Amino acid sequence: MLDNSIQQGNLLNIDPTQIVFRRVVDMNDRALRKIVIGLGGPKEGVPRENGYDITVASEVMAILCLASDLMDLKARFGKIVVAYTYDGKPVTAHDLEAEGAMALLMKDAIKPNLVQTLENTPVFVHGGPFANIAHGCNSIMATKLALKLADFVVTEAGFGADLGAEKFFDLKCRFAGFKPAAVVVVATVRALKMNGGLAKDQLGGEDLAALERGVVNLEKHIENMGKFGVAAVVAINRFPTDTEAELEFIRKRCQELGADVALCEVFTKGGEGGVELANKVLALIDSKKSNFKVLYELELPIEDKIKKIAQEIYGADGVNFDKAAQLSIKKYTEMGYGNMPICMAKTQYSLTDDQTRLGRPTGFTITVREVRLSAGAGFLVAITGAIMTMPGLPKRPAAMRMDIDADGVITGLF
Amino acid sequence: MLDNSIQQGNLLNIDPTQIVFRRVVDMNDRALRKIVIGLGGPKEGVPRENGYDITVASEVMAILCLASDLMDLKARFGKIVVAYTYDGKPVTAHDLEAEGAMALLMKDAIKPNLVQTLENTPVFVHGGPFANIAHGCNSIMATKLALKLADFVVTEAGFGADLGAEKFFDLKCRFAGFKPAAVVVVATVRALKMNGGLAKDQLGGEDLAALERGVVNLEKHIENMGKFGVAAVVAINRFPTDTEAELEFIRKRCQELGADVALCEVFTKGGEGGVELANKVLALIDSKKSNFKVLYELELPIEDKIKKIAQEIYGADGVNFDKAAQLSIKKYTEMGYGNMPICMAKTQYSLTDDQTRLGRPTGFTITVREVRLSAGAGFLVAITGAIMTMPGLPKRPAAMRMDIDADGVITGLF
Amino acid sequence: MLDNSIQQGNLLNIDPTQIVFRRVVDMNDRALRKIVIGLGGPKEGVPRENGYDITVASEVMAILCLASDLMDLKARFGKIVVAYTYDGKPVTAHDLEAEGAMALLMKDAIKPNLVQTLENTPVFVHGGPFANIAHGCNSIMATKLALKLADFVVTEAGFGADLGAEKFFDLKCRFAGFKPAAVVVVATVRALKMNGGLAKDQLGGEDLAALERGVVNLEKHIENMGKFGVAAVVAINRFPTDTEAELEFIRKRCQELGADVALCEVFTKGGEGGVELANKVLALIDSKKSNFKVLYELELPIEDKIKKIAQEIYGADGVNFDKAAQLSIKKYTEMGYGNMPICMAKTQYSLTDDQTRLGRPTGFTITVREVRLSAGAGFLVAITGAIMTMPGLPKRPAAMRMDIDADGVITGLF
Amino acid sequence: MLDNSIQQGNLLNIDPTQIVFRRVVDMNDRALRKIVIGLGGPKEGVPRENGYDITVASEVMAILCLASDLMDLKARFGKIVVAYTYDGKPVTAHDLEAEGAMALLMKDAIKPNLVQTLENTPVFVHGGPFANIAHGCNSIMATKLALKLADFVVTEAGFGADLGAEKFFDLKCRFAGFKPAAVVVVATVRALKMNGGLAKDQLGGEDLAALERGVVNLEKHIENMGKFGVAAVVAINRFPTDTEAELEFIRKRCQELGADVALCEVFTKGGEGGVELANKVLALIDSKKSNFKVLYELELPIEDKIKKIAQEIYGADGVNFDKAAQLSIKKYTEMGYGNMPICMAKTQYSLTDDQTRLGRPTGFTITVREVRLSAGAGFLVAITGAIMTMPGLPKRPAAMRMDIDADGVITGLF
Repeated sequence: MLDNSIQQGNLLNIDPTQIVFRRVVDMNDRALRKIVIGLGGPKEGVPRENGYDITVASEVMAILCLASDLMDLKARFGKIVVAYTYDGKPVTAHDLEAEGAMALLMKDAIKPNLVQTLENTPVFVHGGPFANIAHGCNSIMATKLALKLADFVVTEAGFGADLGAEKFFDLKCRFAGFKPAAVVVVATVRALKMNGGLAKDQLGGEDLAALERGVVNLEKHIENMGKFGVAAVVAINRFPTDTEAELEFIRKRCQELGADVALCEVFTKGGEGGVELANKVLALIDSKKSNFKVLYELELPIEDKIKKIAQEIYGADGVNFDKAAQLSIKKYTEMGYGNMPICMAKTQYSLTDDQTRLGRPTGFTITVREVRLSAGAGFLVAITGAIMTMPGLPKRPAAMRMDIDADGVITGLF
Repeated sequence: MLDNSIQQGNLLNIDPTQIVFRRVVDMNDRALRKIVIGLGGPKEGVPRENGYDITVASEVMAILCLASDLMDLKARFGKIVVAYTYDGKPVTAHDLEAEGAMALLMKDAIKPNLVQTLENTPVFVHGGPFANIAHGCNSIMATKLALKLADFVVTEAGFGADLGAEKFFDLKCRFAGFKPAAVVVVATVRALKMNGGLAKDQLGGEDLAALERGVVNLEKHIENMGKFGVAAVVAINRFPTDTEAELEFIRKRCQELGADVALCEVFTKGGEGGVELANKVLALIDSKKSNFKVLYELELPIEDKIKKIAQEIYGADGVNFDKAAQLSIKKYTEMGYGNMPICMAKTQYSLTDDQTRLGRPTGFTITVREVRLSAGAGFLVAITGAIMTMPGLPKRPAAMRMDIDADGVITGLF
Repeated sequence: MLDNSIQQGNLLNIDPTQIVFRRVVDMNDRALRKIVIGLGGPKEGVPRENGYDITVASEVMAILCLASDLMDLKARFGKIVVAYTYDGKPVTAHDLEAEGAMALLMKDAIKPNLVQTLENTPVFVHGGPFANIAHGCNSIMATKLALKLADFVVTEAGFGADLGAEKFFDLKCRFAGFKPAAVVVVATVRALKMNGGLAKDQLGGEDLAALERGVVNLEKHIENMGKFGVAAVVAINRFPTDTEAELEFIRKRCQELGADVALCEVFTKGGEGGVELANKVLALIDSKKSNFKVLYELELPIEDKIKKIAQEIYGADGVNFDKAAQLSIKKYTEMGYGNMPICMAKTQYSLTDDQTRLGRPTGFTITVREVRLSAGAGFLVAITGAIMTMPGLPKRPAAMRMDIDADGVITGLF
Repeated sequence: MLDNSIQQGNLLNIDPTQIVFRRVVDMNDRALRKIVIGLGGPKEGVPRENGYDITVASEVMAILCLASDLMDLKARFGKIVVAYTYDGKPVTAHDLEAEGAMALLMKDAIKPNLVQTLENTPVFVHGGPFANIAHGCNSIMATKLALKLADFVVTEAGFGADLGAEKFFDLKCRFAGFKPAAVVVVATVRALKMNGGLAKDQLGGEDLAALERGVVNLEKHIENMGKFGVAAVVAINRFPTDTEAELEFIRKRCQELGADVALCEVFTKGGEGGVELANKVLALIDSKKSNFKVLYELELPIEDKIKKIAQEIYGADGVNFDKAAQLSIKKYTEMGYGNMPICMAKTQYSLTDDQTRLGRPTGFTITVREVRLSAGAGFLVAITGAIMTMPGLPKRPAAMRMDIDADGVITGLF
């Protein structure tokens, strides 16, 4: 509809070099990351640069997960800024008269779909927004429905607690008005030893020194949860290589920070392996009243919101804004989008924006290269590194192994 | 998989400028007709020209409609020529190891789907190949299934009998071994008067002179059916403006050619309006034994097969082959594809390749500009004019009117 | 200036998909034939398709050769149609305010440059317009200057007399008001035998039968000269393989048509080898008064002018106009360019538009695929086949052999 | 030759996505900065991304200015790395067999061309390499010739002394073996006041406070010259707005640093206005023996050479290397180019890489975003910001005003 609007007289005065809404396709197609379209002459569209993202990276997915109902979904679709005019004004999906058709197409997708575990525990798997350019957790509608149906609802938030929990709190909970009762911070002995400087092939034996160096990362995450007013239980996903001394070491350190620890053996024992964790969470909820609050107020200037996240949650000294980021912030503020919350796009491997700096780094700054507007989703994306939104295929794609025989027997899917 | 194969070392030695299999998408997207992909540097794919067709224009659709079963479908997918190597050798989907995954994706699509009319007559609507670059009728599998389930099966073949019937006979029936018992040639008084030279706004009143000039077109179609050894009933789709004299005129002329005529009033009366036609078809089948044969033998050279269709069916004096067409014919013959049947891509508005020449023209030649290979579908496409395989949107796309309200009520679809 | 005008607000309302003036560069660069420019974002120009021609193929070269003086040059530059607006109006170089700078750049190039032969005969080599999309002979200014300086001036016109002479007469002489006194039609025994059906490797021995079959081509050219009112001498460029009988045969046939014949041995004997030809030309000029006239009047419709050339000069039965050509002719006529003379772009190997038809073919039609406007040069180009305006390099470009040593000695240029 | 080599079988195995040598044209053509070439099918070149620089930005210009003679020029042309193979090996102009033809084309361009001032002082204006991606001063051959012809030779080095002088010393003098006898640092009262924080429209009156804040910039440049072992005279280009107090202030501050100061009034008085400066330079040469040395040894690692320039000359605390820069440095070191000198590409407006930081900043780091190889010129380019190598035209290009009349009178050039 966007390219057609330009082709058919361009009544909206759209600048073909300033179109920000990309096409999407649900396949890994590296060759479509950067393309030129509209070639072939005056009847074949207007030439311009374009590119495809994978479907889940679309703002439409973020909107699906943040909408409160069908009408809110439609309204948010209408607010998506898809392009700018030659004189710099935003053009929305509403200007294209597209939000009705978009909502119509999504009328079934919006309904939470119930699945179950092997032990018949009900689960909603509904929506999958990217955890970098979007907020990385499932739909508000699914969570609301779950809250009506169950006594306790657990939400998984993608990436580490510096990204997953922060966005869950500051975006999803803020939009939906949710008040979480408790947090489970998941850790493994292996990951903490890697945060202590060990390489992947050095994780075989007990190494309390490495664990000591690495546990500071976990401590930072536990402290961070306190900044949102929610108490945390630490769940240690047990691996066969974990030693008792290592587990005990973590347990002590967490208790010094006031966080209880539960061993989690769901991978080997199923639901039974999670009973300890469940009980500790229930105990926590009973004993400590949650005093949930978001990290920052929306009225703060954009830069200050980003700084607050970087300083409070990541432990940074400050934030550098590249020239492009400064210009965007100025523009979005003038356009009236200054009061939106922030969606940080940062590496999940480090509390900094440099994936090689492990543990709990200090004395660093975060560099924001670019700020993007997701006006329909309702947030601004602060980008701190290269973000990949269209995967490629490996040398031998899985499709090469897939087959079906005359009896309909399928092979090669996994 | 094709672009990835080039990117990952290009073991198949594919020439990026000689890729013939296009991407498809099921939307009207004019700006994708001609694009350049793979831009952005060494990690973002290999730069090349490309373009999208609408999904139904894909050779995959033609294959779906010509395959006899799932294994035949897979085998045909494997035969699709997707590109040529730097030294001119064909590269197939099988070379890309893609046919297994393709067949797997289509495992449900291959199953004929049963729908019904408002009067509960069962119908298979299964497959929709383009009637220009493909053969324009539904799947062999659906027809076979219908033949097992019903006493009589009627197949609709797209466009006029010079294209629809010829391709139904020479492609679908030849591949499937079907022996049609009778043909229904559909006509309207209005269309015959337009073939007699009237403009659309001159069709209001009786005009027997125009009808006389135009009825030769119908006569040619009736004669043509005889060349396939199948007798025809003419069905006249009645319009309110048709006069009795006009209908009588057609009736007489058809009977002189030995073809019975039935008035068809299904549009106004439903099934009852087709009873006369049905009875006449049954009578024809009882009275005349079909002696079905295809028009040409596969062993003929490609040019001769095209000439035979043009001369026998269209009434042409001969066929001109543009240089590009000559080179393709030579190449495909050398590659071993010379024994395939022909799928003519010609305007549906005239027996010639010039849509302004109506009635039953004589003294003309057909110009074949280009010949394309559909090795998986199993035919060669002879192209006689500009073929559109990706539609565009109008000034106000239908999507602008579509909407859904809070109660889920949908508007604007029709 | 054109792309900049679009970038800087597009005050002229230029449609980037309807730009007809291409960039040029004076190198053989195949990869620039078809390109996309203006990529990279809003500050890097407007995306569009473009391509380079080799410099001599530019309309600027044709204008240089047809201008009467510097002010006419500037005025013609201003008339070049470089693009069309979104609503189909022509945009000229004058609209871009470019003709002053263009004329300034060409102020020295416009001056005829005098060179000399090895025997010190003065020659102007000035301008080299393509002989297909342009008229293929040197500048009017050089010829005018030569006419002031010498008693007799000889102009070479590129390609055979059906193209070279016709364009020299109907374009250059018409524009300049020149009245040629005589024509020299150049022929070789070898070429005439090839017109009689011999292959290149069959030209070694005497073959009067082939010559008889081929001489009709020469006869047609001699006849054609008569249609312009100018008498012709035939110059036979002698080759060592020519036999006396063959030369005598041509001589007789030409004399039957009233044309004298001179043997030309300039290649082996220098100026002395041309004395016979020179004397015969002088004798012709003395004996027969030239009655020069152009072939057609400018007031004829475009189609009729093209038909007249095709029928009178090529011997065609008629002319087919492809749809694109018909549309262009209609458009140019409406724009007021209908009264321009025609520049035919046709193969130089045949009197027809099919380079394989030799001798003096009859019973053929010419197909005009496309008509282009050279409003500054002042003619319409009728294109009858594929025209190459940017050459490519061979597998081993000459540049690979070129070198210069420490003493400045150059090698590899020839 | 490069695109042709790929097209003609690609014997050198060149990866079209890894071509680093760009086309050039000597016009401001923004729309050519980023283009896609080789479109149109298998005979029209290989599709790839490309772009044009303005001619002077070509490595060919840098080479012309650094070559010692014709044979050195040819050898350096041969060393230009134009592309990389699919397996990452460099491809040079020598591999393309291009350096002979390149040298041949430049055989006249290499000769220094003598011009003169209005007062008949001889000057060589020969070569104009960009002062960012290249070294910004004229050819070694011109300077050598001047040294043979004159008692004293003055070379202008583009941009401030942090760039112009450093590159003149570390690149041109190092390559040519020149030993400069003295330095003239040029300053203006206005520029120093701007370095002291005044805006352009605040320069009208005397402002000794601003001068005091800004003069530290000049002091840094004077100190820097000492690091190369060459004494400096400061030349103040006098403006009408300069007050005596301001001039006196600068004079004193320079003398405290041991540098003499001369007022320069060449703009208003011609050669006479430079006599004081000339005399002071001569006096300096007589009194102080130059002890010229380059800043860094070539054997240092690439990073260390860059750091030394940044710390010693710019006064930076250190240097950040972006990931792309780190990868390039590693690659070039492995390829054997680690011993080349560095050509810094930095803003000329600040001693830092941030053009807004004036005066003599401290406590900053320089960020190297990218390192490019100029293997023919013989240096590595360290890029610290956005570099423009193809200018665009303004809203009304100068060409719009240019004209020539019937008498050949030219207007609009200046």
